[in-house]
Amino acid sequence: MYHGCDHVVAVETMPELFNVLPPSQALEVLRKHVTPRPESEVVPADQALGRVLATDLTATEALPAFPRSNMDGYAVRAQDTFGAAESLPAYLSVVGEAPMGRAPTVQVAQGQAALCYTGGMVPEGADAVVMVEQTQEVRPDAIEVLRPVAPGENVVQPGEDIRPGDLLLPKGRRLRAQDIGGLMAMGVTQVAVARRPRVAIVSTGDEVVPPTARPGPGQVRDINSYTVAALVEQAGGAPLRFGIVPDDLATLLAAARKALAEADALVISAGSSVSTRDMTANVISRLGAPGVLVHGVSLRPGKPTVLAMCDGKPVVGLPGNPVSAMVVFDLFVTPLIGWLSGENASRTERTVVARLTRNIASAPGREDYVPVRLVRENGQVCAEPLFGKSNLIFTLVRADGLVKVALDKSGLYAGETVEVRVW
Amino acid sequence: MYHGCDHVVAVETMPELFNVLPPSQALEVLRKHVTPRPESEVVPADQALGRVLATDLTATEALPAFPRSNMDGYAVRAQDTFGAAESLPAYLSVVGEAPMGRAPTVQVAQGQAALCYTGGMVPEGADAVVMVEQTQEVRPDAIEVLRPVAPGENVVQPGEDIRPGDLLLPKGRRLRAQDIGGLMAMGVTQVAVARRPRVAIVSTGDEVVPPTARPGPGQVRDINSYTVAALVEQAGGAPLRFGIVPDDLATLLAAARKALAEADALVISAGSSVSTRDMTANVISRLGAPGVLVHGVSLRPGKPTVLAMCDGKPVVGLPGNPVSAMVVFDLFVTPLIGWLSGENASRTERTVVARLTRNIASAPGREDYVPVRLVRENGQVCAEPLFGKSNLIFTLVRADGLVKVALDKSGLYAGETVEVRVW
Repeated sequence: MYHGCDHVVAVETMPELFNVLPPSQALEVLRKHVTPRPESEVVPADQALGRVLATDLTATEALPAFPRSNMDGYAVRAQDTFGAAESLPAYLSVVGEAPMGRAPTVQVAQGQAALCYTGGMVPEGADAVVMVEQTQEVRPDAIEVLRPVAPGENVVQPGEDIRPGDLLLPKGRRLRAQDIGGLMAMGVTQVAVARRPRVAIVSTGDEVVPPTARPGPGQVRDINSYTVAALVEQAGGAPLRFGIVPDDLATLLAAARKALAEADALVISAGSSVSTRDMTANVISRLGAPGVLVHGVSLRPGKPTVLAMCDGKPVVGLPGNPVSAMVVFDLFVTPLIGWLSGENASRTERTVVARLTRNIASAPGREDYVPVRLVRENGQVCAEPLFGKSNLIFTLVRADGLVKVALDKSGLYAGETVEVRVW
Repeated sequence: MYHGCDHVVAVETMPELFNVLPPSQALEVLRKHVTPRPESEVVPADQALGRVLATDLTATEALPAFPRSNMDGYAVRAQDTFGAAESLPAYLSVVGEAPMGRAPTVQVAQGQAALCYTGGMVPEGADAVVMVEQTQEVRPDAIEVLRPVAPGENVVQPGEDIRPGDLLLPKGRRLRAQDIGGLMAMGVTQVAVARRPRVAIVSTGDEVVPPTARPGPGQVRDINSYTVAALVEQAGGAPLRFGIVPDDLATLLAAARKALAEADALVISAGSSVSTRDMTANVISRLGAPGVLVHGVSLRPGKPTVLAMCDGKPVVGLPGNPVSAMVVFDLFVTPLIGWLSGENASRTERTVVARLTRNIASAPGREDYVPVRLVRENGQVCAEPLFGKSNLIFTLVRADGLVKVALDKSGLYAGETVEVRVW
């Protein structure tokens, strides 16, 4: 617990662990401490794209609800076509037509056929559909069938798509366009989804001024809290920016407490100097129990990452430079927002396969992420490493994505095929 | 021009071309006809994520604006450290500290050093920074430097990130989180972006009823116009749903005209029967010059796709079944929305590399897309083809993405490494 704001005392009692863990282990430590307790809200299904389902949804109807033709053609009794061939067609009399959108009034008996359309209901008595291309009209009321069909051929059976009681969509599914189609198919026009996790963002740094300010000597505009807010939005969270807080323990602690109280998680974008970073870790350790879980990750850029749980709410200390902040956000905060939403699957990492144009040096025991530009050369996608200093925002603006050098590798060679995380 | 609504006359005068083109050629035909004339609007930069820049933006300031330290350490004259080693350190007197966020008052002369922090301004006189780890304090006002630094080492020079007059961000850039950071860094808090292209969506089909209705015998709920609306939103457009129109030439034509007049592009989601599809193509051919450009693509599913330009506005006829509609949307409508927004680069196709679990048969001369589920087996990502009938919406709901079988291939083998377009 925090009992004062004296800077010296604070540093002496700092209960940090300084575990430098590989990124995957650090993520696992954080995950174990996060309990998704998302509040839910009901939204119209056609506005639920990207939201996370709060409950399992069960099918209440069969789809299709009726035997449905899969082709334009003739509904028949399959057995009437057995043995049919171009040289010996089956002769059937056409007794009518199955209309679209209504129950057919016609029935199909032995030796009979009824015209029907893709998506239409197959008339009673028929158990298969012959494609129109495999028939020929011999009279307006008679056809020859040139090929046999099996029972059920070209017919979608009731319940073949989904049956009552089947799981329509699972709790925790982040809804995609086709999922919304699936909801509509079942007549579900309102759904309970997790409220977007509110992620508070606090920036620190005595050198940081708002984007609207004209920076004086030694000052820079706030970049990270806006980049982070956009990343929170992209990950499905609701960003709450709490502005820039000076590098002062008591002030930062008060601001962090207030921000965390109003949100489901807190991201502190630290200033760039080591002392500010240490102060950030110190503040985080005072926000609640159990406090700092991970301080330092074997990751470049991004080593000084802080992961914490404070009285049930996750807190992340992001490194100050923009590239590090993005890498760390991608690795830790994006999954965190998924967990807080109750998302049931980790997002599949989408990548572009490319040929590396230059060697990348790394060190075993550390995961490296190098910004790259994607360029097309002779129809091949190539990844060109950008070896800019990682504190340059325009390195990020020029980059199309990141190449990862795995923990056990000492580098990657020019010409290698690599997967680029596009951002 | 359209002079009547007699169904028979309409079919006879249908001016369609019936070019069955490979998907890439069909896309190119459409692209040649699309002229982006996006209207622009000014939005706050922190709300511009995913929007497309309407103008080139030029840097008005240098970044950094001052020589900035890249490390916590001591600002020095590099030549004072030449030849320094652990066995023969360079001895420097510490004359003060460069504060964060202000211009240093201290100057560094020969034989002197000043404490400075990452992100801080390097004091006058100094031309390099020695990392604190490569020094040792011998007295409160003196250090030993254990390693030489080169001039400029650990210092980011003014303008090294970006210089006044440099291109900040190009017209046509779809803004990402880091681009918003770049805008803020330059103090740009308002930006002109392309208005989201309005995409009208009309559904046809006598069998189709709204999701709120209880379908009667032979009826199905509208799925595609909701799936399509969500896909339009995802692609950066503004969907306008115009409801369900009966399969009647005059009614559909009137509805399509009204929808196109109010939008920048029109998508008609056709009913599933061949006659409805033909009527859709017929209607599109009457909406304006030059009319239908492509009718039929060598693609499965998605062959009956219609691509058209009608008096300057693109019109796409989507096949009726859900899987086809999604594949065709992905291949044609997503890029179209980018062009209409003035986007300057085609989106990189993001995929997941996976091992195919079963053979997929195809036919050379046709591009096939097969829905797959992604499963993890022994730490490897595997793609499991879902050979469902393509008119089943829940095939889509169960799928994680699509595997493409290229035009020149007759199939893919189990065990092959494939790229899955995740959706």
